Amino acid sequence: MQRAPGPAGTFSWRVRVYYEDTDFGGVVYYANYLRYFERARTEWLRALGVDQERLAREQGLQFVVRRAELDFARGARLDDLLDITVALEERKRTYVTLRQRALRGAEAIAAARIQAACVRRDDFKPAAIPTEIAARLLP
Amino acid sequence: MQRAPGPAGTFSWRVRVYYEDTDFGGVVYYANYLRYFERARTEWLRALGVDQERLAREQGLQFVVRRAELDFARGARLDDLLDITVALEERKRTYVTLRQRALRGAEAIAAARIQAACVRRDDFKPAAIPTEIAARLLP
Amino acid sequence: MQRAPGPAGTFSWRVRVYYEDTDFGGVVYYANYLRYFERARTEWLRALGVDQERLAREQGLQFVVRRAELDFARGARLDDLLDITVALEERKRTYVTLRQRALRGAEAIAAARIQAACVRRDDFKPAAIPTEIAARLLP
Amino acid sequence: MQRAPGPAGTFSWRVRVYYEDTDFGGVVYYANYLRYFERARTEWLRALGVDQERLAREQGLQFVVRRAELDFARGARLDDLLDITVALEERKRTYVTLRQRALRGAEAIAAARIQAACVRRDDFKPAAIPTEIAARLLP
Repeated sequence: MQRAPGPAGTFSWRVRVYYEDTDFGGVVYYANYLRYFERARTEWLRALGVDQERLAREQGLQFVVRRAELDFARGARLDDLLDITVALEERKRTYVTLRQRALRGAEAIAAARIQAACVRRDDFKPAAIPTEIAARLLP
Repeated sequence: MQRAPGPAGTFSWRVRVYYEDTDFGGVVYYANYLRYFERARTEWLRALGVDQERLAREQGLQFVVRRAELDFARGARLDDLLDITVALEERKRTYVTLRQRALRGAEAIAAARIQAACVRRDDFKPAAIPTEIAARLLP
Repeated sequence: MQRAPGPAGTFSWRVRVYYEDTDFGGVVYYANYLRYFERARTEWLRALGVDQERLAREQGLQFVVRRAELDFARGARLDDLLDITVALEERKRTYVTLRQRALRGAEAIAAARIQAACVRRDDFKPAAIPTEIAARLLP
Repeated sequence: MQRAPGPAGTFSWRVRVYYEDTDFGGVVYYANYLRYFERARTEWLRALGVDQERLAREQGLQFVVRRAELDFARGARLDDLLDITVALEERKRTYVTLRQRALRGAEAIAAARIQAACVRRDDFKPAAIPTEIAARLLP
């Protein structure tokens, strides 16, 4: 889980494929890419100075995934190191759209377009992304 | 995991939300809908007489998800009973496209469009869906 | 997830092994038995009239696993149907000890001894099991 | 997932708690500690020069968990950094017994005693731990 080098403007986070991630096909169970993508988004937010645990506790806000488009190109295998990238596509008042990729070296393993909305934790209604966070989210 | 009643032409499978499915937000962790959707597809195939374990063992074939589009409308909660539907949208030589929904009663919780391809287990190359299976997959 | 027949005094819950449950070894990933065991405990409590979601919401209480001893005898495979049993070994003021098994027909797949404690949800401190629930938990 | 400092003779691996790891109780879902413990064992083996993927491919061998004793002392929370330790307790011909802990700083979160056996991948029968690996496993 170290930061991997990424192209300018792209954040990248390295994950290792463990037993827990694989399935009967011998490759990473596809639903687990959603977890990899999310770990990278969390670390991207952390690198931007956004603390999700505090956001929840102090402001009662949370980011939730509203829509995900996922493409699975090839299977990653046990022990593979994957670089999971995050790039901001657009920022709206209550949500952001992100482009993400899972790479094994230069090889594309999976790709995602994720729409994550800011919501109030008590009723899951959309809320404006707090100004101090929005200021850090520049495409 | 009983069969739930569905509209004509739509298969439906009932799942219960357990602790393991929830997250810190108090609702089902969104990646877990991919697992619910898959359970329903597996049971739909089983209801059509398709045995995936035998398909793997005897013909070296497997269905893999190539693309998934997921929409999350609202959060399902601990103990909820969800009806997961499956409807075939199209059948091509090597893949099928399916429409799926997660419903709590009449309420839409999540929806998916899933492209599942038939591949050879040894190299994950696309393979024609076996004739006896294709014959059962009618949109 | 239908109730399976069990010996007198033993509750049993049937689970199906799906892709999501398997790993690279081709069998159920061992950590997933904890999930199967928990589903059976949840259904056992439900059968006894205990509603965990309401217990959390109305009384601020929750059962948590404090100790688990797990034995893995053989691997369950994709599509297997497993009967997960629950038998109460002892009931104390703040916790219960349960014996559980995962069976494939008569064949022992895994076994567990689980200590589950009643705690307050706000600080996870031990709490007495509510009288109306304790009355239903008879070894 | 960086190496954390550990007491002499104890290997330690750092993991971050993500959304995927938490449950409705707001803390890490207890079954997920089995995954943390396994990641640390995998990295411990890797640090000892043992490549599990190659062991499977070239010698048809795999380590499987036969028995696990788990104690859960307190709940880890979203964003926590945990140090997962591994210490070898004993090495037999076909299995090893390990002591593991999950620590948040100096605070004990969970502990495990794990028996991991070397088995043949085709029939899951016990096999002698290969000499070159056994030589590296010294309590």
